[in-house]
Amino acid sequence: MTLESTFAKRLGNVETSAIRELFKLLAKPGIISFAGGFPDASMFDIDGIKAATDKALGDTAGAVLQYGATEGYNPLRAGLSKHMATKGVTVSPEGLIITTGSQQALDLIGKTMINEGDNVIVEAPTFLATIQCFRLYGANIIGAPIDGHGVQVDRLEELIKAHKPKLVYLIPSFGNPSGALLSMERRKQILALAVKYKTLIVEDDPYGELYFDASATAVAPRSMLSMASEVPGSLDWLAFAGSFSKVMSPGLRVGWLIAPPALLAKATMCKQFSDAHTSNLSQAIAANYLASGSMPAALVKVRKVYAARAKTMETCLIAEFGDAMRFTAPKGGMFFWANLTGARGQSTDVAALAKAAIANNVAFVPGAPFFAHDADMTALRFSFATANEDLIREGVTRLGQAFRSI
Amino acid sequence: MTLESTFAKRLGNVETSAIRELFKLLAKPGIISFAGGFPDASMFDIDGIKAATDKALGDTAGAVLQYGATEGYNPLRAGLSKHMATKGVTVSPEGLIITTGSQQALDLIGKTMINEGDNVIVEAPTFLATIQCFRLYGANIIGAPIDGHGVQVDRLEELIKAHKPKLVYLIPSFGNPSGALLSMERRKQILALAVKYKTLIVEDDPYGELYFDASATAVAPRSMLSMASEVPGSLDWLAFAGSFSKVMSPGLRVGWLIAPPALLAKATMCKQFSDAHTSNLSQAIAANYLASGSMPAALVKVRKVYAARAKTMETCLIAEFGDAMRFTAPKGGMFFWANLTGARGQSTDVAALAKAAIANNVAFVPGAPFFAHDADMTALRFSFATANEDLIREGVTRLGQAFRSI
Repeated sequence: MTLESTFAKRLGNVETSAIRELFKLLAKPGIISFAGGFPDASMFDIDGIKAATDKALGDTAGAVLQYGATEGYNPLRAGLSKHMATKGVTVSPEGLIITTGSQQALDLIGKTMINEGDNVIVEAPTFLATIQCFRLYGANIIGAPIDGHGVQVDRLEELIKAHKPKLVYLIPSFGNPSGALLSMERRKQILALAVKYKTLIVEDDPYGELYFDASATAVAPRSMLSMASEVPGSLDWLAFAGSFSKVMSPGLRVGWLIAPPALLAKATMCKQFSDAHTSNLSQAIAANYLASGSMPAALVKVRKVYAARAKTMETCLIAEFGDAMRFTAPKGGMFFWANLTGARGQSTDVAALAKAAIANNVAFVPGAPFFAHDADMTALRFSFATANEDLIREGVTRLGQAFRSI
Repeated sequence: MTLESTFAKRLGNVETSAIRELFKLLAKPGIISFAGGFPDASMFDIDGIKAATDKALGDTAGAVLQYGATEGYNPLRAGLSKHMATKGVTVSPEGLIITTGSQQALDLIGKTMINEGDNVIVEAPTFLATIQCFRLYGANIIGAPIDGHGVQVDRLEELIKAHKPKLVYLIPSFGNPSGALLSMERRKQILALAVKYKTLIVEDDPYGELYFDASATAVAPRSMLSMASEVPGSLDWLAFAGSFSKVMSPGLRVGWLIAPPALLAKATMCKQFSDAHTSNLSQAIAANYLASGSMPAALVKVRKVYAARAKTMETCLIAEFGDAMRFTAPKGGMFFWANLTGARGQSTDVAALAKAAIANNVAFVPGAPFFAHDADMTALRFSFATANEDLIREGVTRLGQAFRSI
């Protein structure tokens, strides 16, 4: 008998991600990467975060360095209550808990909700780490198809009826990898489905603030949570995962979970035995930074830069690929989701292009791993967040060369 | 149907801790608490940690605020490799991963190892959050009795034979709540049992550095991990959870896990889907603080203060309780574990004392919740870490008054 032979059965539900393997190739010097899922570190508001840190390690140092409550650092919970109010969401500080990144919010929902064999519906495609996280709790993941306006509500309803899922997981705004924006009409329709079928909706919203509309009146797309008061009963069937990772810093690992009270209480208990609490220093920094009022201005910059990069990528992809590639240009977020089409869109072509691209010093991620089943083998994901416009031009040129070489 | 009726079955394995409920009573002003499990925040090396933070947000700010590797921040992994070498442990930076507090190391071991219905052996009594953490993965927890020298090896072997546990969880040095120091002979015997019965041992070591021997040659008790090279084959069946919580700061949430390669790889995968990675800022602070060389001097102070407080508590408990209380004075750590004896040691007396104590403005924790089964209803836990000597004298006096009142 070996130790390995005694591992838990749940490990058999997941495998090491193909993407993780791909990332090992990206250390190659000179490569232009559209493969990552990271925000651009050069746009972090380091001065603002430093000031927030100095404050945290001032008068509050003793409390910040000590153990804290599992629910979270109270000034941050209070700050998020106010912050969410500006987003049309009424939630008390006690109505949310702080998580170690929003990934932990998903993990706590999995631990609290999912039994071995439970069905869970996700968008097809969706965030790979959610699929894997829920599978570790034994979930059977079912993908619901999307179009240019997000998940298709009629198909979603059919799947809910057929599979009676434990929960439906959605990234309505500029999701990873699709970049799609779920239409406002569909958001309300899905809230009504939650009530009709008594099915929990998990709304994951890391990208909502990254909208590209630069007009003076533009605001982030309304979250489903902010609409729930207009759909009677839906607040009882809706959980929301928030994150500072794309708007402040992912390295701090601060997210939050808003959920119906009974679910929040059990998620808190699960968190107590998962990591006791989230780094108090990270939480205090987030609280101080939020209170400083610096975030909106920092976000204006990020939005402008990402919007310009997305536009450049769109122009270049059209120039290089023409009819051989199809996509809906994103209205926000960090990703282009595209398909190779026609004679060039065969099931082996994306893998061949990925290989040729790396050989030509440019990288992207094939789309197949983002599907729980029935993968679209013609799909690709490009991130435009970390390469500047010059690099995007050069990278897409190299990609076109690679494409013509296969 | 309500949302609550759809929660996962695993939640039925645990209940909200009685201790957690007790803690709600401690907000009472003027109370002297021996109930907590916290280190003394007034002894945190705030200046040292501030310097480490400034450094982290200097040249490395961009990397620290960005996403990091699930395995951990490489300078910290390298620093811990060196640190463990000074403790007699040979481990490469790649042989350990960073966890969000050592609580997460336990959670990852649970996720990686435990199937519903698996037996797990722990000391009786042991750390409550470990019992609950493992129960959430479906573990059936079996307690092995301890004496003044830690877990009883003959009884442990009988239990291993009878129950074929998935793993044995031990806090060999000054464990919570027992404060016991597992003898060096027993450590080797248990490593031999691990090999003989092919059973994983999980060594949790948050308190090892808090030994009270003030002689110039004194060092921390040898970890089982440091002895494993002397027991052939035992390294294949041993995992080690380390923590900065009692020696640097718990609020940063930085721990580490050392385990056989196959287990470490799977724990890393589970961590990826639990919280992606631990706060990079917390990790960089820990790395810089460790590299600064400030920790040993800070620890000398902590040891002296805790030793003096333990001595004072010992003297006062003897003076107030005499033969009515039995304990082995701890040689390190943060806790006294005691029993009410004789006619005063009835099953209802500890609960009555806890109530009378709170009424008299002093608090401790009853010992019963620290047992997975067959609780010792006469046991009590006192922490001497956070009250200074004057408060300890006054608190034990109040405790004596409460005792004589019941």
